[in-house]
Amino acid sequence: MVIKMATIKDIANKLGISVSTVSKGLNGANDISDALRQQVLETAVELGYTGKRTQKKKLNKLCVFIENMDFESLSDFGHDIVLGFKQAAFKEHFEVEIKPINYNFQINEKYDTFMLANAFSGALLLGFSLEDPWIEQISKTHFPTVLLDNFIEQNPHVGCIGTDSEEGIELAISHLISLGHEKIAFLDGSKGSMVSDERMIAYLDSMSRHHLPIDPNLAVYGYFVADAAKYHVPTFLDLGATAILCGNDLIASGVIAECKKCGFKVPEDISVVGFDDLPIAAYLEPALTTIKQNRIEIGKCGYYILHAMMQNIALSKNLLRPSLIVRNSTAIAKPRISKRHVDDKDSVRSINPSLYNRHLGHNKQD
Amino acid sequence: MVIKMATIKDIANKLGISVSTVSKGLNGANDISDALRQQVLETAVELGYTGKRTQKKKLNKLCVFIENMDFESLSDFGHDIVLGFKQAAFKEHFEVEIKPINYNFQINEKYDTFMLANAFSGALLLGFSLEDPWIEQISKTHFPTVLLDNFIEQNPHVGCIGTDSEEGIELAISHLISLGHEKIAFLDGSKGSMVSDERMIAYLDSMSRHHLPIDPNLAVYGYFVADAAKYHVPTFLDLGATAILCGNDLIASGVIAECKKCGFKVPEDISVVGFDDLPIAAYLEPALTTIKQNRIEIGKCGYYILHAMMQNIALSKNLLRPSLIVRNSTAIAKPRISKRHVDDKDSVRSINPSLYNRHLGHNKQD
Repeated sequence: MVIKMATIKDIANKLGISVSTVSKGLNGANDISDALRQQVLETAVELGYTGKRTQKKKLNKLCVFIENMDFESLSDFGHDIVLGFKQAAFKEHFEVEIKPINYNFQINEKYDTFMLANAFSGALLLGFSLEDPWIEQISKTHFPTVLLDNFIEQNPHVGCIGTDSEEGIELAISHLISLGHEKIAFLDGSKGSMVSDERMIAYLDSMSRHHLPIDPNLAVYGYFVADAAKYHVPTFLDLGATAILCGNDLIASGVIAECKKCGFKVPEDISVVGFDDLPIAAYLEPALTTIKQNRIEIGKCGYYILHAMMQNIALSKNLLRPSLIVRNSTAIAKPRISKRHVDDKDSVRSINPSLYNRHLGHNKQD
Repeated sequence: MVIKMATIKDIANKLGISVSTVSKGLNGANDISDALRQQVLETAVELGYTGKRTQKKKLNKLCVFIENMDFESLSDFGHDIVLGFKQAAFKEHFEVEIKPINYNFQINEKYDTFMLANAFSGALLLGFSLEDPWIEQISKTHFPTVLLDNFIEQNPHVGCIGTDSEEGIELAISHLISLGHEKIAFLDGSKGSMVSDERMIAYLDSMSRHHLPIDPNLAVYGYFVADAAKYHVPTFLDLGATAILCGNDLIASGVIAECKKCGFKVPEDISVVGFDDLPIAAYLEPALTTIKQNRIEIGKCGYYILHAMMQNIALSKNLLRPSLIVRNSTAIAKPRISKRHVDDKDSVRSINPSLYNRHLGHNKQD
């Protein structure tokens, strides 16, 4: 996309001040007032000025904004993503700043103004949800921006990265089918999260593709926490499920605990599969079979996609391939009989109805 | 993904010859026989050797394979894709070889062997269909490979690029709705092409999202040629369509001609929208409103995705943002009345039934 870039002169004209005063404002000089500096930055942002044309030395600072995601310890989900991003960026001589932020920070600082004031050329955003205050601003930003696990429509400066849920779920279902499982339940994460919705569609598609019946009582949304298991696992067991696929590894850890509590052995009686391959997955008892998101690769991919976007390539969605890590929580299916027929439609309601109906239609066709 | 790379010593051991003979085979030296050289190459490929580890100087040759796509003249679809790829690759000091190939070439040469023998580090493939002989080999290749408008499952060395059909079709439908159109027909390209199927889903989704009724007689697959228009446009006109969206610009050129033949003026009586923005789009009479695929960007994107894949980032699907180019073939909707009610179900059959039923279900729900 070719866009006319605002210049430093446009900012000076708009404010009726000199080019050198604008320069001082943009470069953080001490001899202008904070108020004027703020006005220069706000105007620069309003005009879509991103600093690329006038700065003599190449801008080479990138930012990773982190909202609602742990990353400091090795076992945190975000740790390796940040590491991978830094590794790829350093290799191409970019400095990287890691900036954990919260809701209030987003209310008090404008995204573009913050990017400009800190001379960042682009940013990776981790842990944001579509309800975050910055999302509205990011849908109009001129700064190259990459979002993990979310999607913004129609802004050529914003790209999205994530792991291919469809391929991941297909790997897990094929693995379970190869072990003789047919009654495969799915306990997903929270309804309305982009990732949960993708994984639910992927589960329904994969079951259809393999001609396995879809039972609405076996395909439910929960939450991305271990506790979600206790509300759904007893029903799955009563209905004769021999395998439970989970929306992430935390849910899977809860599912394993709940199966044990109900007197079922994993994997002898019930197979359990997670999603993510968090460091804890290998240390669960039994060690968890799970769909791996390679987080070092996610971080590196964040850099490479951002790099392309800084060259004006309007990338939109970009997916990484998952892999299946087979450990001890899956085994050959043990024949079981459903204890009861569930008549109440509570679980049906917990599925996004349009997704569900779409797939029922699809399924009938097959 | 960490994969143990085969070394030159593994090839020597397997063939029971010396490392230096293997070297000669790989480097095209004259003092070994063609037969032995071929055996060295075949074994290297069998073991997944890609040359990266032992070659002292950095490998820096990339290949663009072109099958069934014109690219030599400025007005050809492939021209700017090749240009964009070269521009981005040259900037990072890669040599690029352009290699038009055909069906027989694919039968006679193996993909990996050809890549290795020519010391290519990676390749972009343009114009291939899933029926091409190389596709089977590419599903198992170890060479970083990027495919335009096709998708290969589960091989971490193969990535796919394309333009986001969903966003493109949404831009076009929103534009037509803003002009007062409701009865919007869609004449798609060939059934079974990945791009056509995506565009049909996108059309059905977008119509549902905007609460417009879906008439199976107004949503049909044709072929990617201008001639497709004459079989469908008369029905569209009889049914009272006020706008026709087309699977590509060639189809649109046929649609405009057919409308004129039936005594309808474009855009006064009927609005027409294309897809691609080929150079001809601006010279049609009237100049065509169309969804632009920026082909320079596609080419550059091909390079950037390939570059990331050469760093072992297992990218799978990568989409570029389209834009809507508004010219003279769209105008405010003119109220029209359907001439006849079509009862025969011929057109219904030309829609992929599983897609169609899925969307009928979806639609009912809304």
